[in-house]
Amino acid sequence: MTLEELEAKYAYYKGLDLKLNMARGKPCKEQLNLSMGMMDMLNSWTDLTGEDGDDCRNHGVLGGLEECKRLLGSIIEVPSDNIIIYGNSSLHIMYECISRSMTHGVMGSTPWCKLPKVKWLCPVPGYDRHFAITEFFGIEMINIPMNEEGPDMDLVEELVSKDEYIKGIWCVPKYSNPNGVTYSESVVKRFATLKPAAKDFRIYWDNAYSVHHLYPDKQDFLLEILDECAKAGNPDMVYKFTSTSKISFPGSGVAALATSKANIADITKQMGVSTISYDKVNQLRHVRFFHDVHGIRTQMMRHANILRPKFELVEKILDEELSDCPIAKWTKPLGGYFISLEVPGIAKEVVARCKECGVALTPAGSAYPYHNDPNNSNIRIAPSFPTIGELETATRILCLAVKIEYAKTLKA
Amino acid sequence: MTLEELEAKYAYYKGLDLKLNMARGKPCKEQLNLSMGMMDMLNSWTDLTGEDGDDCRNHGVLGGLEECKRLLGSIIEVPSDNIIIYGNSSLHIMYECISRSMTHGVMGSTPWCKLPKVKWLCPVPGYDRHFAITEFFGIEMINIPMNEEGPDMDLVEELVSKDEYIKGIWCVPKYSNPNGVTYSESVVKRFATLKPAAKDFRIYWDNAYSVHHLYPDKQDFLLEILDECAKAGNPDMVYKFTSTSKISFPGSGVAALATSKANIADITKQMGVSTISYDKVNQLRHVRFFHDVHGIRTQMMRHANILRPKFELVEKILDEELSDCPIAKWTKPLGGYFISLEVPGIAKEVVARCKECGVALTPAGSAYPYHNDPNNSNIRIAPSFPTIGELETATRILCLAVKIEYAKTLKA
Repeated sequence: MTLEELEAKYAYYKGLDLKLNMARGKPCKEQLNLSMGMMDMLNSWTDLTGEDGDDCRNHGVLGGLEECKRLLGSIIEVPSDNIIIYGNSSLHIMYECISRSMTHGVMGSTPWCKLPKVKWLCPVPGYDRHFAITEFFGIEMINIPMNEEGPDMDLVEELVSKDEYIKGIWCVPKYSNPNGVTYSESVVKRFATLKPAAKDFRIYWDNAYSVHHLYPDKQDFLLEILDECAKAGNPDMVYKFTSTSKISFPGSGVAALATSKANIADITKQMGVSTISYDKVNQLRHVRFFHDVHGIRTQMMRHANILRPKFELVEKILDEELSDCPIAKWTKPLGGYFISLEVPGIAKEVVARCKECGVALTPAGSAYPYHNDPNNSNIRIAPSFPTIGELETATRILCLAVKIEYAKTLKA
Repeated sequence: MTLEELEAKYAYYKGLDLKLNMARGKPCKEQLNLSMGMMDMLNSWTDLTGEDGDDCRNHGVLGGLEECKRLLGSIIEVPSDNIIIYGNSSLHIMYECISRSMTHGVMGSTPWCKLPKVKWLCPVPGYDRHFAITEFFGIEMINIPMNEEGPDMDLVEELVSKDEYIKGIWCVPKYSNPNGVTYSESVVKRFATLKPAAKDFRIYWDNAYSVHHLYPDKQDFLLEILDECAKAGNPDMVYKFTSTSKISFPGSGVAALATSKANIADITKQMGVSTISYDKVNQLRHVRFFHDVHGIRTQMMRHANILRPKFELVEKILDEELSDCPIAKWTKPLGGYFISLEVPGIAKEVVARCKECGVALTPAGSAYPYHNDPNNSNIRIAPSFPTIGELETATRILCLAVKIEYAKTLKA
């Protein structure tokens, strides 16, 4: 099609006055319905006593119910001794870890706010809300390119070993946000054997999609990092995060931090000052609904059955529409919540054009620190929330926008 | 009775091998049972849509559901526009407010961690968990004596007007922890008209017991502080906190911050970085159970019916046993969770003696910053958790311990 023909098609879509949203990784209604049974787990006749005899309705049990630690531990393959259960948001745990490090340091190190600067490694493209936290604390963010096995470990090793102001790195190690990569065994082992110049360097290992497969038979495998770090003599180097946000209800789930016992002792001091306890009734509700890792896996296959057709539809349309477009590349992940589309030089223009046509995407650049995508290339597609019908239309419009913007670059 | 007779009686109690606890302000099982109906409010057939059309099961609505803002606003008499709903813990909100001020200042002021020092006013006796937060952040705490109308306002006015490092004051303005005082109208008005040297000075107004009356007919009245501050031209000077911790379930309730819109705008910037949203399903559960302030009031009278006999029993025993003890004084509050016993010079010894006999009390000194009660006088009694039978025994032992320790001072 000529640019004029493409523009005519675009004008047609624009006339439809659409309102479609592929911006955020939100579960759709059908997915949320999968957890409605959880609302029946507790009623006014239920005994709300935990297995250790604690009345879950009352104050107490700072680090969380043992049975809930076991459940969340099973999701991310760590023993319950290495887990603290928090409130509803793993993002908030990460925020609090950085905030605590700013004011109090890590295991007795100098509070980061007393240092002339703090730096952080950011594999890119990555999760915008991670970068927002480090930006909020004035931490200097350094881009680390992602490849098919994970972050560029040559660069990570070199930087952390020579710069004591580098205090952390953001990682989404499985079905990463947004490009769906799972870190290879070699990458995980290289993380575990890092020799950081900063003793208080911590890997922020956000295992948000640990059980979030799209297929029953094709699944990525991720090496367990706490164990690898312990074996490598670096037991305290990792904070590992998880939550049930995309297992049960986002915002009404349970979140956890897994780490070494020494880190837990360090963190518990602050935790005991900041609160009396977290929501144990909701912890119990999750335990009674899911029971164990088998309950979780069954639930995740139900999620997959809803999500898979959406991912496959988007991928099919991208194949149909953009195979001829030489600059466009996209991912076909086996799990997680995103498809990542690379259109070097025109991402911002494509997203703006989609918006004009009623299709909301995450703002271009969001997957990079300071919203600065150096190649103006990455577009994050979140297929979970729209219906199949909406997704069809939205993806066609996205492809059309890519074709128009690409055609314009050829003309220019 | 002679000291020997008292010691003999003590030996008898000690032989009973008791395990009684009057240490923490925890509701008892009968109180928790009052909220069990809340567990039936939501089930798998319930529509979990908020009144603004939001699916409460999904991400979003950062500051909380409008209907939940209204409900918590009604508890502390502020419009829903002036409220942010958080998670389960008002203590955690206070912690986060101070933590944020340390790293980011208040409305653009210098981050407190960049100042040579930060000071805080602490009306004493007060709430140990408040003091633990300021101590954790290395904030210098200054004792302010409490009198029958509230804190010594002459001292508060003098100190805040001349010292720009004084950044805040802890207040439990109604049925205060531990001495049950409600600030008088004059005290509230003097708070509202403070002229602090520090522009980023904030009153931390922990209205924990706003509706926690013990009697249907005799109730303290507290002037609404946000309104008074606005009238006095100090609209931004107060952070007001509340929660349902002692209305529904401690640890599984809903907590809120009420303040000016300018403060809310300042705080929301940080809130939006630190999390996606709080637990709206639990917000909805509370709204559906309590409906409005009338539902809250009814619930609180049910609590009062359980708590009142316990308070009256402790007061009766103190009257019986200690009226002859010239140093002992105690409070007879109309609400809240504590009776405060003053035994100058022997508090530590009395608490230790109770512990030896199996009666746990909050450690002596807890109601003071740095656990340092200058008069070794204050003992906080929490009558809510034990049964009436346990309370009878525990209070008799407490009185016996006071009599013994007092008799020893006469002998010495």
